[in-house]
Amino acid sequence: MEQPVGRRGTRTIDVMTAIRAKVASRALGPDDRLPSIRAFAKTMGVSPSTVVEAYDRLAAEGLIRAKQGSGFYVSASALPPLVLAEKLPPTERAVDPFWVSRQSLDADSAALKPGCGWLPPDWMPHEALRRALRAIARADNAVLSDYGSTRGSFTLRRLLMGRFAEEGIELSPDQLLLTASGTQAVDLICRFLLRPGDAVLVDDPCYFNFRALLRAHQVKIASVPYTPSGPDIASFEAILAAERPRLYLTNSALHNPTGATLTAQAAHRLLNAAAAHDLTIVEDDIFADFEPEPSVRLAALDGLNSVIRIGSFSKTLSASVRCGYIAARPDWISDLLDLQVATSFGGPSPLATELIASVLSSGSYRKHMEELRRRLARVRRETAGKLQHIGIEPWLMPRGGFYLWCRLPDGCNSADMARASLADNVVLAPGNVFSASQTAASFMRFNVAQCDDPIVIDVLQRTIGKSCPSNC
Amino acid sequence: MEQPVGRRGTRTIDVMTAIRAKVASRALGPDDRLPSIRAFAKTMGVSPSTVVEAYDRLAAEGLIRAKQGSGFYVSASALPPLVLAEKLPPTERAVDPFWVSRQSLDADSAALKPGCGWLPPDWMPHEALRRALRAIARADNAVLSDYGSTRGSFTLRRLLMGRFAEEGIELSPDQLLLTASGTQAVDLICRFLLRPGDAVLVDDPCYFNFRALLRAHQVKIASVPYTPSGPDIASFEAILAAERPRLYLTNSALHNPTGATLTAQAAHRLLNAAAAHDLTIVEDDIFADFEPEPSVRLAALDGLNSVIRIGSFSKTLSASVRCGYIAARPDWISDLLDLQVATSFGGPSPLATELIASVLSSGSYRKHMEELRRRLARVRRETAGKLQHIGIEPWLMPRGGFYLWCRLPDGCNSADMARASLADNVVLAPGNVFSASQTAASFMRFNVAQCDDPIVIDVLQRTIGKSCPSNC
Repeated sequence: MEQPVGRRGTRTIDVMTAIRAKVASRALGPDDRLPSIRAFAKTMGVSPSTVVEAYDRLAAEGLIRAKQGSGFYVSASALPPLVLAEKLPPTERAVDPFWVSRQSLDADSAALKPGCGWLPPDWMPHEALRRALRAIARADNAVLSDYGSTRGSFTLRRLLMGRFAEEGIELSPDQLLLTASGTQAVDLICRFLLRPGDAVLVDDPCYFNFRALLRAHQVKIASVPYTPSGPDIASFEAILAAERPRLYLTNSALHNPTGATLTAQAAHRLLNAAAAHDLTIVEDDIFADFEPEPSVRLAALDGLNSVIRIGSFSKTLSASVRCGYIAARPDWISDLLDLQVATSFGGPSPLATELIASVLSSGSYRKHMEELRRRLARVRRETAGKLQHIGIEPWLMPRGGFYLWCRLPDGCNSADMARASLADNVVLAPGNVFSASQTAASFMRFNVAQCDDPIVIDVLQRTIGKSCPSNC
Repeated sequence: MEQPVGRRGTRTIDVMTAIRAKVASRALGPDDRLPSIRAFAKTMGVSPSTVVEAYDRLAAEGLIRAKQGSGFYVSASALPPLVLAEKLPPTERAVDPFWVSRQSLDADSAALKPGCGWLPPDWMPHEALRRALRAIARADNAVLSDYGSTRGSFTLRRLLMGRFAEEGIELSPDQLLLTASGTQAVDLICRFLLRPGDAVLVDDPCYFNFRALLRAHQVKIASVPYTPSGPDIASFEAILAAERPRLYLTNSALHNPTGATLTAQAAHRLLNAAAAHDLTIVEDDIFADFEPEPSVRLAALDGLNSVIRIGSFSKTLSASVRCGYIAARPDWISDLLDLQVATSFGGPSPLATELIASVLSSGSYRKHMEELRRRLARVRRETAGKLQHIGIEPWLMPRGGFYLWCRLPDGCNSADMARASLADNVVLAPGNVFSASQTAASFMRFNVAQCDDPIVIDVLQRTIGKSCPSNC
């Protein structure tokens, strides 16, 4: 039975290598149990004592650890760092949730960006921003150099409470927290409520960065098909029962990427299902001010019990002066505040929040939004017409905002088109970056405010001709 | 053997309640294994079938789940949200790592804050900030409203690379990432490298917010005694062997809270020990510009292999215009960049980074720092004298910066004094908020720039008289 030492040494190393490979590929995750000695000896065709020796050596190295009476487990500390994006050559990257962010944030100034998620600089209220900057240049020393209070600018919080009141939500001051951005707000909530391995529900399609963010939290992503009136309620109820998600991340009005608006009936059923399964909902409402008139909101129906509201000013006012907010139960806000102090020290920049407050409180913000809505309604119609002309069909005509979620001509693959268009310095947003189930390959999101240049339609038409077999 | 149904029902509920209490108190954490049926039946004095029924019911509720062949485990999704600070009445809160942040960030403008971690507003370069704001008010539209590139302002990165070169560190552009603040920089690195349950090493004493931040990451905190020449090297080596920490968080020069400076010899031994144990070091260098002349740095000795450098401008320029940075291995910077996009979308505010770049590149920054160092040298001597006069003894006289780490008169408890001084609207920083081992009850950190008002010394003297038994 006993093997020669040299031979046995090699076999021990084989077993160690096999376990190391499982950890490196994450087939075995943090705190996962290793195969039993007996079972793994069989798998590897070695004696149990060889596996014992290999496990002992790996434990001495710190990669795994023994738990008394229950076998060996992967140590958390032995794991490679968190890597989020796929390390693939650029041409294979199209369906990675980071694809649009990378291409659109780091595009050169000559690039055309019908795929990006914001308005062109000249659509933003620069005169108001410049006036606010000149006013801040005369502010108290403390505004220019101090950390500011943990809850953030009182002026801005008071303005926001007024806006909530218009929506029918009576917010007490301890239900509101200013954050560094809308994304940071969602991230804080995820850190507070989620643990690795939890299930989180998103819409399919949904904002691509929800997928990137949830990867960073190492949670399981479940998805519910999105219809023109909101998530498909029957699927929603079935997923809640089957997957028990801890959180549902969604946009109620002017949903990203579809531009759809939740109906009152869907909202009501959705909240009932959530209550039955102890689900918390994050209602990301950053497109609210683009609506022609207010539609139903989960936070307003629920009264901020199991719904958390997120907002920001990056889409309407400035993505450079960043600021977001969270409205939620007071006990949660108090804990979120501690988490923000621990991870950012202090609240958001007083300079940023005072700037936002200054623009919001001037009459110019309402006028700016009216003008934006009018201008967007016009370019939405025009862009939809131009896209339809080349066979790209809007899934629905949104009531507001700047997105058009479109089906491509038969046989077109949006990822292939997006990769091909990069050669023409045109950044597109292919459907599958928005789809957890990867079922949106024939869809694409367009930003109607970024489609003005005729080159966009030219490049699309040329790419359809080249990359879509049925159009050749 | 069979019990009456009613009785058995009660016992099942007892077992369920006992398990729920263990989960609520976190005696059982996420993915922890529950006691075996047989063992818990014995503990609770019930039959195994009662425990089986209780576990089945808890599994149906989603609190626990069965793993085939290996018993029951706590579900991650059933856990209460992450709570960081102790929920205690204010008078019992003194040694909580959030104590100083809460008191100093949210203090009213009349409060005196010898415990706080920043300079008074009138010490900051306001004229330069106001000039920079007026210049930004005339900047391109894109600077005022766009997200900016994922790596952040090119101008600021070029300025920082010049500063690294002066230090003898040749940085390639792909080794530098701008972040929203120094704290956010440390937080990003922790998210990237750490998993819950990892061990992390800090100095004892260390910056209190390192403790708060590490709690948020749910890691185990190990600590090494800090000496006037750096961490105690023998202890450092022993802890590395015993605890295998993944990360060591430290300040090399003008250490917070002691003001001590790492010696070249200590730095060399520390790096060798780190290399032998595959330890990554985060060198938080936010006080660098307060040094009268440069001392040794881990990043410079190591060449950014296993050392990550963090910096910010919150202490020297403005905590309102926040911006920090990370210098590290290019492959890590690339992954950190993805993580920052996922969790903040885009890099730090272009407005903030262009403002910082504008002040740094004007000649006024160097003059401002020279003046600050001169002024601090004077108030450091004066404050040390006044504190010594009332029996409060500096542990060492720092070469620069604004901290004095002091030993209180015999019998004084710094937490008691800090609580008592709140009644006089004076915010102090008691020793144990800085101490992972809770061995600094007789120490206190003073900010010499915030001790100018004679009331500070009066209140200290009165509090010593009242709260310290041996002085009565």
